[in-house]
Amino acid sequence: MTSSDAKFSDATGAVTMATLTAPLEPLMLKLDAFLEREIECFEPEVREIVRYTFSHSGKRLRPILVFFCGWGGKGRVDDMVKAAAIVEMVHLATLVHDDILDGATLRHKAPTLVAKYGAHASVLLGDALFSEALRLATQYPSTEICRIVAHATRKVCEGEICQTFKRGDARISLVLYYRMIELKTAELFRAACRIGACVGGYGETFVAAADEYGMHLGTAYQIYDDVADLVGDEASIGKTLGTDLASGKFTMPVLFYLEKMTVKERNDFANKCAEMSNTDLREAFSGSDALARTAAAFKTEIEASARSLYPFKNLPSCEPMGLLAVFVSGLMPKR
Amino acid sequence: MTSSDAKFSDATGAVTMATLTAPLEPLMLKLDAFLEREIECFEPEVREIVRYTFSHSGKRLRPILVFFCGWGGKGRVDDMVKAAAIVEMVHLATLVHDDILDGATLRHKAPTLVAKYGAHASVLLGDALFSEALRLATQYPSTEICRIVAHATRKVCEGEICQTFKRGDARISLVLYYRMIELKTAELFRAACRIGACVGGYGETFVAAADEYGMHLGTAYQIYDDVADLVGDEASIGKTLGTDLASGKFTMPVLFYLEKMTVKERNDFANKCAEMSNTDLREAFSGSDALARTAAAFKTEIEASARSLYPFKNLPSCEPMGLLAVFVSGLMPKR
Repeated sequence: MTSSDAKFSDATGAVTMATLTAPLEPLMLKLDAFLEREIECFEPEVREIVRYTFSHSGKRLRPILVFFCGWGGKGRVDDMVKAAAIVEMVHLATLVHDDILDGATLRHKAPTLVAKYGAHASVLLGDALFSEALRLATQYPSTEICRIVAHATRKVCEGEICQTFKRGDARISLVLYYRMIELKTAELFRAACRIGACVGGYGETFVAAADEYGMHLGTAYQIYDDVADLVGDEASIGKTLGTDLASGKFTMPVLFYLEKMTVKERNDFANKCAEMSNTDLREAFSGSDALARTAAAFKTEIEASARSLYPFKNLPSCEPMGLLAVFVSGLMPKR
Repeated sequence: MTSSDAKFSDATGAVTMATLTAPLEPLMLKLDAFLEREIECFEPEVREIVRYTFSHSGKRLRPILVFFCGWGGKGRVDDMVKAAAIVEMVHLATLVHDDILDGATLRHKAPTLVAKYGAHASVLLGDALFSEALRLATQYPSTEICRIVAHATRKVCEGEICQTFKRGDARISLVLYYRMIELKTAELFRAACRIGACVGGYGETFVAAADEYGMHLGTAYQIYDDVADLVGDEASIGKTLGTDLASGKFTMPVLFYLEKMTVKERNDFANKCAEMSNTDLREAFSGSDALARTAAAFKTEIEASARSLYPFKNLPSCEPMGLLAVFVSGLMPKR
């Protein structure tokens, strides 16, 4: 892929989702066309729900990671587009299964698959998307891509299982919290980055750096996502929020919030938190340093992701990768 | 794998599960040891449920297919054992997900994973088993094995989705019934046979024959399984029966049974069948030719599976493969 004279920020140097993705537009159109053709690979009865899933696929953050990590490398465009499709399909499969388990009804401003087609079809469609993604991964010359995808997929599921087993436990350690979000989110970010750099034709040292970048950026992203679920605004984010506390998932800001409480206060909070709205929660958290401490942990991860790129700053891929980290860092609500 | 002087029948020439699997015992022990080591590859929190799933894995029919189709070939034993583990893990993953959807509480004479650990963990464990199986498949030199496994897995899920969408429809065509059981069952039998022949070191023409054999044997096996679910004996089969009708799945014997009914009779049956015990059903079906016609369709598939082996009858793998078809043909209850 050639970088040509792509520009990822506006005239003032500001980075938005729009400025970041503008140079990717031709690739994103190719990705849309690839996914459209993919629908036809499924059995006729299944195509409608595959189409529904593909057409509500959000920000396409993981394809962006693939394209940015391979940016300006010698990889073929078609191979990059396929890699982006594989990672997006794995991500969509995990969302489909997550939404069943969370009982979520809204995702990307539309009804979730489980809300529209039921749990049966959703469990199975998730499985079919996983396996189709892996089938596509076998079309590369070596088993490398398939291995990365299969490994990441297993880690994502294991992370979700750990979280399931820890539901309702308000005293999980920060170490365990980090391990769970690394597994359930950062592993797939990391896989997207590794595959992007790999298929993009970059050498081993940069592939390892992209892997590191993805791991930290994914961790940061999940911390942001956990904060948004807690105190975000449903209308602007476009998905059901507050599902974490309602389902007994205690995330970083909550762990910090509970840390200084007495056992009684902690139990009181655990008993009533499932019924609290995001507005109630914002109010409750406003007197605590929990959100500020979470924002600091988030910043540490963003900085680590940027740091992994330093030795490669002359590579064309490092500019969009660095700017994406800047953009993600701006997602966290200012206090 | 060397065939040595293996014998797959007893002194009288009778074939039982015991005589068929006796020569496989060293391989099955290696498979057990392989799966035991596999448990350690999962995150610590997940190991208990992986162990539970592995330790209730039934007849291991699909590993038997792998071993038989590669029997006497030049394949390395370790590669064959890994192939058997991959296919068994995919099968177990589909069972775990099926049991959630069917609400089954008993499988292989033990509580199902969903009954013991809940739907959350079960959905995710199925996913983790799928992806671990595919990760193992990437350890072969080419992408071939991974491709076969990913393809079969997708087909299995698509078959289940079709069936889900057709639940409650008592007028599905036989053509659709065949397509659904080919997808949901025969595709994985076929994959097991293809992988066995392939990893076993056999050439392309025999690999294609093994594929054909697996497709027909798998179709026959699902027809048998559908009959057993309808009129079988729960105590001797060791799993919850009657789930098909209870969940609105109309299988071959039921389709034949309904064929000659008036619309009113058909509706009456559809309304009351979910509450009928297997004994009631046996009684209802005794005056009909539905079970005999189903047995005939089953026999056609068994014969087709045996026929695919004819051109290769001098290969060492064809003896156990042929005898396995004989054994499966004996599963169907005599009338």
